[in-house]
Amino acid sequence: MAVSDIEAAIQLLARLPGLGPRSARRAALYLIQRREAVMQPLAAALARAADSIRVCGRCGNLSDRDPCAICLDPVRDGTVICVVEDLGDLWAIERSGAFKGRYHVLGGTLSALDGRGPEQLNIAGLTTRCSAPEVAEVILALRATVEGQSTAHYIGERLEGSGVKVTRLGQGVPVGGALDYLDDGTLMAALRSRQPA
Amino acid sequence: MAVSDIEAAIQLLARLPGLGPRSARRAALYLIQRREAVMQPLAAALARAADSIRVCGRCGNLSDRDPCAICLDPVRDGTVICVVEDLGDLWAIERSGAFKGRYHVLGGTLSALDGRGPEQLNIAGLTTRCSAPEVAEVILALRATVEGQSTAHYIGERLEGSGVKVTRLGQGVPVGGALDYLDDGTLMAALRSRQPA
Repeated sequence: MAVSDIEAAIQLLARLPGLGPRSARRAALYLIQRREAVMQPLAAALARAADSIRVCGRCGNLSDRDPCAICLDPVRDGTVICVVEDLGDLWAIERSGAFKGRYHVLGGTLSALDGRGPEQLNIAGLTTRCSAPEVAEVILALRATVEGQSTAHYIGERLEGSGVKVTRLGQGVPVGGALDYLDDGTLMAALRSRQPA
Repeated sequence: MAVSDIEAAIQLLARLPGLGPRSARRAALYLIQRREAVMQPLAAALARAADSIRVCGRCGNLSDRDPCAICLDPVRDGTVICVVEDLGDLWAIERSGAFKGRYHVLGGTLSALDGRGPEQLNIAGLTTRCSAPEVAEVILALRATVEGQSTAHYIGERLEGSGVKVTRLGQGVPVGGALDYLDDGTLMAALRSRQPA
């Protein structure tokens, strides 16, 4: 039944971030009225993408192959590994174009509350990768939250003595950020990491 | 390639009302991380829905059958036809539960600018339906825009002498609406249609 298929699609669309029950209905309406131009291609693209997604056994990235395109790209710098929490953070850094090394996706942060210990994260894979002689630096690009920072601290300790340089992202005023909208922690970090003008 | 399938899906998602390039990316990320729970069911529901949608030859509604479930429902009042601009307006009225008759979907409004005359709209079908003896009333539930109202006026004239009562939606203060946010036209309409308290 199309009515219930449409209803099913609306309920699934409503779960997407940024859409709610009402906007999912509007989105479904839009799709129905553009059946051949948008609805069918979208259904096909989602089905094909869902079918071909693989977890990269090396870095934990999600893409259509294992190892992923980033791990296989000979142009990228294999001496630097950027450790991120999840795929969204990897995409964000890729979008910026500021990093040309390889990644390591942890799949979350350590969290006593949620019962996530080191075994639940892709940390063992990271230490294995760091034992390769070409790896010189690990950048811990974890979020500036309590959990992100304690995870960074834990990984930093695990990599101690491995001979790999461990760094973190700089903290400070966001580019274009107005000072009076910043929280105190960011302002303190920006003052601590002040540089000659 | 999954990467380009994901990219294709992101670009199609970004065309949905309520989503832009950035939120489409977030939505795709959400889907990828919930491949079996959301992504595959959504792809399947969209494909099935796109496949089974029919235009109702009687009223112009879009659903999985022709005639549509509303036209076939023996419980609904066949003496009243509610004329709406498009499927979205039909859904809005159905959601309210305030109407239990049948519908007629015009597929737009008359518009000299966009070159939409009476032939481009489903108006001939409406006059044919109104010639049936059981039809007693046509409610013109068109939007309170210039084009909606001129379309209502045109249809009203076309149905003159058909013996069918033609009505329009009441205009006034929306339920829960604060007066000082209303435009002058609505306030004028509310005053004109004032009723004994």
